[in-house]
Amino acid sequence: MNLKKKKKSYKVKNLSPGTMAYRGKKQTTAISIDIINYNGDSYKREHSNRVEDAFNHKGNDQVTWININGLNNIKEIETIGLHYELHPLTLEDIVNTHQRPKIDEFENHLYIVFKMLYFKDDDQLTKEHVSMIVGKDYILTFQEADGDVFDDLRDRINSTKGRIRMRGADYLMYAILDAIVDNYFSVIEAFGDKIEELERHIFESSTSSNETPNKIQALKQDVLKIRRAIFPLREVINRLDKTDINFLEIKTHDYLKDLHDHIIQVCESIDLYREMVWSLMDMYMTIINNKMNEVMKVLTIMASIFIPLTFIAGIYGMNFDHMPELHTKNGYYILLGAMAVIFVLMLFYFRRKKWL
Amino acid sequence: MNLKKKKKSYKVKNLSPGTMAYRGKKQTTAISIDIINYNGDSYKREHSNRVEDAFNHKGNDQVTWININGLNNIKEIETIGLHYELHPLTLEDIVNTHQRPKIDEFENHLYIVFKMLYFKDDDQLTKEHVSMIVGKDYILTFQEADGDVFDDLRDRINSTKGRIRMRGADYLMYAILDAIVDNYFSVIEAFGDKIEELERHIFESSTSSNETPNKIQALKQDVLKIRRAIFPLREVINRLDKTDINFLEIKTHDYLKDLHDHIIQVCESIDLYREMVWSLMDMYMTIINNKMNEVMKVLTIMASIFIPLTFIAGIYGMNFDHMPELHTKNGYYILLGAMAVIFVLMLFYFRRKKWL
Amino acid sequence: MNLKKKKKSYKVKNLSPGTMAYRGKKQTTAISIDIINYNGDSYKREHSNRVEDAFNHKGNDQVTWININGLNNIKEIETIGLHYELHPLTLEDIVNTHQRPKIDEFENHLYIVFKMLYFKDDDQLTKEHVSMIVGKDYILTFQEADGDVFDDLRDRINSTKGRIRMRGADYLMYAILDAIVDNYFSVIEAFGDKIEELERHIFESSTSSNETPNKIQALKQDVLKIRRAIFPLREVINRLDKTDINFLEIKTHDYLKDLHDHIIQVCESIDLYREMVWSLMDMYMTIINNKMNEVMKVLTIMASIFIPLTFIAGIYGMNFDHMPELHTKNGYYILLGAMAVIFVLMLFYFRRKKWL
Amino acid sequence: MNLKKKKKSYKVKNLSPGTMAYRGKKQTTAISIDIINYNGDSYKREHSNRVEDAFNHKGNDQVTWININGLNNIKEIETIGLHYELHPLTLEDIVNTHQRPKIDEFENHLYIVFKMLYFKDDDQLTKEHVSMIVGKDYILTFQEADGDVFDDLRDRINSTKGRIRMRGADYLMYAILDAIVDNYFSVIEAFGDKIEELERHIFESSTSSNETPNKIQALKQDVLKIRRAIFPLREVINRLDKTDINFLEIKTHDYLKDLHDHIIQVCESIDLYREMVWSLMDMYMTIINNKMNEVMKVLTIMASIFIPLTFIAGIYGMNFDHMPELHTKNGYYILLGAMAVIFVLMLFYFRRKKWL
Amino acid sequence: MNLKKKKKSYKVKNLSPGTMAYRGKKQTTAISIDIINYNGDSYKREHSNRVEDAFNHKGNDQVTWININGLNNIKEIETIGLHYELHPLTLEDIVNTHQRPKIDEFENHLYIVFKMLYFKDDDQLTKEHVSMIVGKDYILTFQEADGDVFDDLRDRINSTKGRIRMRGADYLMYAILDAIVDNYFSVIEAFGDKIEELERHIFESSTSSNETPNKIQALKQDVLKIRRAIFPLREVINRLDKTDINFLEIKTHDYLKDLHDHIIQVCESIDLYREMVWSLMDMYMTIINNKMNEVMKVLTIMASIFIPLTFIAGIYGMNFDHMPELHTKNGYYILLGAMAVIFVLMLFYFRRKKWL
Ligand SMILES: [Mg+2]
Ligand SMILES: [Mg+2]
Ligand SMILES: [Mg+2]
Ligand SMILES: [Mg+2]
Ligand SMILES: [Mg+2]
Ligand SMILES: [Mg+2]
Ligand SMILES: [Mg+2]
Ligand SMILES: [Mg+2]
Ligand SMILES: [Mg+2]
Ligand SMILES: [Mg+2]
Ligand SMILES: [Mg+2]
Ligand SMILES: [Mg+2]
Ligand SMILES: [Mg+2]
Ligand SMILES: [Mg+2]
Ligand SMILES: [Mg+2]
Ligand SMILES: [Mg+2]
Ligand SMILES: [Mg+2]
Ligand SMILES: [Mg+2]
Ligand SMILES: [Mg+2]
Ligand SMILES: [Mg+2]
Ligand SMILES: [Mg+2]
Ligand SMILES: [Mg+2]
Ligand SMILES: [Mg+2]
Ligand SMILES: [Mg+2]
Ligand SMILES: [Mg+2]
Ligand SMILES: [Mg+2]
Ligand SMILES: [Mg+2]
Ligand SMILES: [Mg+2]
Ligand SMILES: [Mg+2]
Ligand SMILES: [Mg+2]
Ligand SMILES: [Mg+2]
Repeated sequence: MNLKKKKKSYKVKNLSPGTMAYRGKKQTTAISIDIINYNGDSYKREHSNRVEDAFNHKGNDQVTWININGLNNIKEIETIGLHYELHPLTLEDIVNTHQRPKIDEFENHLYIVFKMLYFKDDDQLTKEHVSMIVGKDYILTFQEADGDVFDDLRDRINSTKGRIRMRGADYLMYAILDAIVDNYFSVIEAFGDKIEELERHIFESSTSSNETPNKIQALKQDVLKIRRAIFPLREVINRLDKTDINFLEIKTHDYLKDLHDHIIQVCESIDLYREMVWSLMDMYMTIINNKMNEVMKVLTIMASIFIPLTFIAGIYGMNFDHMPELHTKNGYYILLGAMAVIFVLMLFYFRRKKWL
Repeated sequence: MNLKKKKKSYKVKNLSPGTMAYRGKKQTTAISIDIINYNGDSYKREHSNRVEDAFNHKGNDQVTWININGLNNIKEIETIGLHYELHPLTLEDIVNTHQRPKIDEFENHLYIVFKMLYFKDDDQLTKEHVSMIVGKDYILTFQEADGDVFDDLRDRINSTKGRIRMRGADYLMYAILDAIVDNYFSVIEAFGDKIEELERHIFESSTSSNETPNKIQALKQDVLKIRRAIFPLREVINRLDKTDINFLEIKTHDYLKDLHDHIIQVCESIDLYREMVWSLMDMYMTIINNKMNEVMKVLTIMASIFIPLTFIAGIYGMNFDHMPELHTKNGYYILLGAMAVIFVLMLFYFRRKKWL
Repeated sequence: MNLKKKKKSYKVKNLSPGTMAYRGKKQTTAISIDIINYNGDSYKREHSNRVEDAFNHKGNDQVTWININGLNNIKEIETIGLHYELHPLTLEDIVNTHQRPKIDEFENHLYIVFKMLYFKDDDQLTKEHVSMIVGKDYILTFQEADGDVFDDLRDRINSTKGRIRMRGADYLMYAILDAIVDNYFSVIEAFGDKIEELERHIFESSTSSNETPNKIQALKQDVLKIRRAIFPLREVINRLDKTDINFLEIKTHDYLKDLHDHIIQVCESIDLYREMVWSLMDMYMTIINNKMNEVMKVLTIMASIFIPLTFIAGIYGMNFDHMPELHTKNGYYILLGAMAVIFVLMLFYFRRKKWL
Repeated sequence: MNLKKKKKSYKVKNLSPGTMAYRGKKQTTAISIDIINYNGDSYKREHSNRVEDAFNHKGNDQVTWININGLNNIKEIETIGLHYELHPLTLEDIVNTHQRPKIDEFENHLYIVFKMLYFKDDDQLTKEHVSMIVGKDYILTFQEADGDVFDDLRDRINSTKGRIRMRGADYLMYAILDAIVDNYFSVIEAFGDKIEELERHIFESSTSSNETPNKIQALKQDVLKIRRAIFPLREVINRLDKTDINFLEIKTHDYLKDLHDHIIQVCESIDLYREMVWSLMDMYMTIINNKMNEVMKVLTIMASIFIPLTFIAGIYGMNFDHMPELHTKNGYYILLGAMAVIFVLMLFYFRRKKWL
Repeated sequence: MNLKKKKKSYKVKNLSPGTMAYRGKKQTTAISIDIINYNGDSYKREHSNRVEDAFNHKGNDQVTWININGLNNIKEIETIGLHYELHPLTLEDIVNTHQRPKIDEFENHLYIVFKMLYFKDDDQLTKEHVSMIVGKDYILTFQEADGDVFDDLRDRINSTKGRIRMRGADYLMYAILDAIVDNYFSVIEAFGDKIEELERHIFESSTSSNETPNKIQALKQDVLKIRRAIFPLREVINRLDKTDINFLEIKTHDYLKDLHDHIIQVCESIDLYREMVWSLMDMYMTIINNKMNEVMKVLTIMASIFIPLTFIAGIYGMNFDHMPELHTKNGYYILLGAMAVIFVLMLFYFRRKKWL
């Protein structure tokens, strides 16, 4: 194999399994902890930067949702993990932003990994690695950085009217995944719009710059990467629906089935867009070829008409002593007439070939 | 990823699960309710715009079919849903026109979603999101708007002779799905005709406009979208045949098996057309290349014959003092003869290459 | 979707399930019934046009094979169906020539649908929709029209020596399917020959007409259609081998396994030819491009050699008063020599580029 | 479908199931029988042309391997089949050289079909249809013609040291299949070398003849045909490992698992080569296009430089009475200078476009 | 089939199953044995070239890891195999460097084969065939040559703090596989970088050399070969997790599940890169076509403008006696003006076609 290492070193240190290594974008923000405690009667939300506050899981018929932002704070996350008795490999996966979506069942909690895709304030598509620990009456979520898609969910928890205040941590887990999947719909809608726009552009554009194949190539890679971030979640939700962990209420299963149905719809859309993007390149190539055909026809018509005429003019530009035609009275006019006839015949020929 | 939000905002409000949001085409038509009550002896059909009339489910050995048109009337549909004890997520799916075909089993009823494809009065292919609630002795159907494929079915119910008057709501459910699938056959037949027409067009057309790739691309997207609307119904009917809900009579299963067989036939046709459409682009590209080849040959023949001749004429158009050929008696005629020989040799050469 | 109805109307009447509608080619031939009764000792064959003769199923340890030709005779087929207690949906499928191959098990008989492909007298490939009802001691076969692949089978039944006279209706069913599958082999062999012929044609042909892509496209569609007619029979035979209907003798299963093995071989051949046909288009495109390359080289060599020479001749054809070269004694000869040198250098250049 | 019969007749006689029909290459060689009897203590090998010698199965704790060459001798093979109580359908498959690899289990023996691929004396790849009957203490192998890959195996049986002398017929069956699969490795190695050679050829060759696409197309068909001959054996060996026939010793299963592992490796290699061959055509097309691009650039540079210069020369070759430039003293030199400037500017232009 | 043997002989000697044949790169290095004995309290590492030292498996609650480098030393490896009671087929696979990854379960040990991919000192990607025997309290690993990815693992064993010192041979087996899989990540990361670099190169490069398709083709083959080396390990780890061999501790299964999850992630990345590499060729072809279009436009514009003008100049370069225009006073200037008008009109025409 001719893969050679470039300047960059790909030699990795083989770390002990369970060693935590943050692989996301560089950031130095401190850990940010958001704690919500609620049941049918009460609601309380707190914010903190101290790790100890993340131990603040009340119990007493309350659901506790602790959200931790800032995966770069490995030490702090390890401390939280020790408190909640997380497996070392779970801790490794929480901070490994390359980890693919998956679900692990432990005796007292579930561990779920997924990718959060959403449009941030500046309308830039953002992909965030999110981990969720689901216990009997508490949920921990770990995010790479601040900003997420859960604000509407928090509002619904705050509101006394919502169904969510009547239900346990299992329903909260569902509601969090539902918010994630709902945002996938908006991402693929944006993607569909982008494909349509590019398709229109291909048909209308006239220059043959490399900008268009560049854009198609970028779309191809986007659809492959989005696919990779989203598809494994389908299997995760399917297995979640079939888990026999004890704190999952029966009536929550109706909701998980609906969620599964939604993620299948997302996946079908992605595969649809995938085929569309792939056929864009074929279409673009066809249109380029069509244009080249047009160019060639213009050249061929011009050259085929004027090259023979130029040859004839060249004949009578020769300096032979004895060229009787040159000395006839109407030779010049007869020749011009003959040239006009040739010109018209050529036009007819190309018209019959439908090139004109 | 370089997906950036355009002017349009893709930021969605993450609504509480079960929140009803109509996503179909804008319309303000009032709800339109059609109620048919029948058994072997009696038949009655009523029409209403009042929601309360949709509660009009007789029982008494009668089958009741209540058809509701106008998914934009969210309030009214919610009222009906509460009366028939539908799950909030079911109500969300009834009005969500993007919902993919599926089947949900509840204790007392089935919920089935499918897409109705048919040619409306103006022969325009119409796609409608339809939901069906199947109870022990009643059926509710929800349509986006007026117009459907059930008129022949209604006539058969009205007629005293039909098998359907002797059977229960489960057979009516089958008959409704059968009408849907029968219409799929007409849609794919129209699609097949369109492919054949385009194929003929590709072989006959002479211009290299972008109209043809545009049409092929549109057909590609159509086949992908029809596929997506129809394929999940195959699984729905398969699961319907295997459900153990108590009000499904044994002899109805023969009919459901036949329906399953028909939807498989539809799906096979779609995949056949899909491959045909894909190969259309390849064929079109080949034909363009063939044409360009023709163009190039004409240019090459014209240029290869006359450019050397023009050069020779140019030689004898030079003004050197000492060019003995110019002063020979038959120089001009000898040269013309030599040029004719070259001309004929070139023709022979191109003939041997089979370009002429 | 931009599918619009053309002049033709695709609006279908949604008929009652079980309504018989013949969809094959127009014909008005009367029904033609062929009845064979046999056992180890006796053999009798009768022919009739009267429906009542099709009820002529003896029993008494005899096997009865009733073959009915002429699916356009809906009335008569319905009468036969009522006598043999066929399901209404079975009757619908018997006359629906678009029905895909399938097997339905009923309490007292099997219903098997398949496509008969064979070369008729004029060597035209013919596709016929055939249905078979298999009872304890009788078989009904329904064909679109006269002409089939069973003549050798009938001869073997007539001959006293054949194994078939010793066996029951289940072995006759096998023998009929075996005759069908044996003919598939001849069809795909013809197909393979056609591919090889076209491949040879592509390499040898010199014109770039659209005839070749047209033929490749037709082969593509043929292979897809043959595939669709044959592939479902594989599943039919597989299920036939696993059915637990009581009149299937154990030793017939060895024969059904062999049949299954043969149909798999047919399917593998079809998929092989399919890949070959698909790669024909790629190869044709490559060869066109190769030819265009040849054309371009000829043009480029001719133009690149003579255009500069013509320019030089043009220089000395100018009429400036002061052009000293024109008045030197050997100017003309020196120039001719220089042109010859340029000519030879160009030839060397193109030779080095391996264009010559 | 537009498949029409050509001169050749594809009408087949539908023979009785179990009718033996040899379909391999024409040959009239007599049957050749090779009999090996061995156990731990004794070894005896005999050769014969008389069918009766093939009945020579000793028993008495001896393993008997009877190899029969010459499938064209239908009569003789039928006689052997009757002696060993083979099923008529088995006899049909033994002489049908088109039969795909398969395994059939009977009460007292196994029937295994496979394809022997090997390089014969003249280094030509040979494909032979081989059948094997495996009984409790005997093995029959049927080959199309003389020559096989079992010589090393026979030597090992002859040698007193080999493990094979200690084991039964089941191990001999394994050893025969192992010899077959070992030869597949050499065939695919030769195939891989051929691909590499062609790939190198594509990059180095300069002519655009049709020889290369022809070779690629041939490789494509070879890989498809080899695939078809080998792939079904994977399933055969898998089922062989799971059969519960009584004469298969437990410790032979370790060997069958290893064989299964080897055939999977062969299949993976074939699929790898398949993808490589497919991408060769794409690469070849790209390289042709690259070459055409080179050709076009040379033409464009030559024409774009000299056509305008020729035009200018043409201007001053006109015979107008009043053309003051012609009569200036340095007109000619100024013009030559101007032409040189244009020439250099054009060169710069094409250099900037990186065409030079 | 037209596969013919080349000079090289593909005729293989069919060796007795279990015959050891080294097929890796030629080397004559002596066997090199590295023995590590450890438990929670003690650690000892020895190095040797004597085969007998490889029998040095202590037992006594110690874990023994014996690593053997140098598969060319067939004799020595056979000796070791006899001592540890390895199956002859296992010994054959240990030295067969072409063996695909697999797992075999024996009564007292597991046999696992995999490929070690890593960047050696000189940053060259190295692929090594590695076999591992896992017993109750010992592990044997066999490598082709010196150099591996286990140095960090050995350090962790040496360190008294690591988890590994507390665990048995089953955990050591996991740790070895984990080191292998961790290195796969670095290999595919290097691969991804190479794809991106080539993609950038395609867009920026201007020459149409064959270097780029050559590189794409090489990448295609690399991705296929890496895929083949890595993919089977996924199934190996999956089966390892499900084996019921007695010396696998329950808590090791959590680690094996994590390992399985990691190998799936590697496989998904490979398939992602695979699709990217495939689409590189399409993109490159599109960009070549775009460039050719540019070239053709330049040629067409130059030729279409100057060929007609040259013709006009040719007209007035003719030597007819009677050409009145030649003798008018401003004829020359009028003609120059007319030519300028034609020139400008042509420019406008090409501008309107957006070619300029
Ligand atoms: Mg690690
Ligand atoms: Mg990633
Ligand atoms: Mg965040
Ligand atoms: Mg939702
Ligand atoms: Mg994926
Ligand atoms: Mg829903
Ligand atoms: Mg393509
Ligand atoms: Mg929602
Ligand atoms: Mg409607
Ligand atoms: Mg129907
Ligand atoms: Mg779909
Ligand atoms: Mg039917
Ligand atoms: Mg119908
Ligand atoms: Mg017929
Ligand atoms: Mg047969
Ligand atoms: Mg099919
Ligand atoms: Mg057979
Ligand atoms: Mg293609
Ligand atoms: Mg036969
Ligand atoms: Mg064959
Ligand atoms: Mg042989
Ligand atoms: Mg072997
Ligand atoms: Mg195959
Ligand atoms: Mg092996
Ligand atoms: Mg291609
Ligand atoms: Mg061997
Ligand atoms: Mg090593
Ligand atoms: Mg790891
Ligand atoms: Mg593989
Ligand atoms: Mg992990
Ligand atoms: Mg392609």
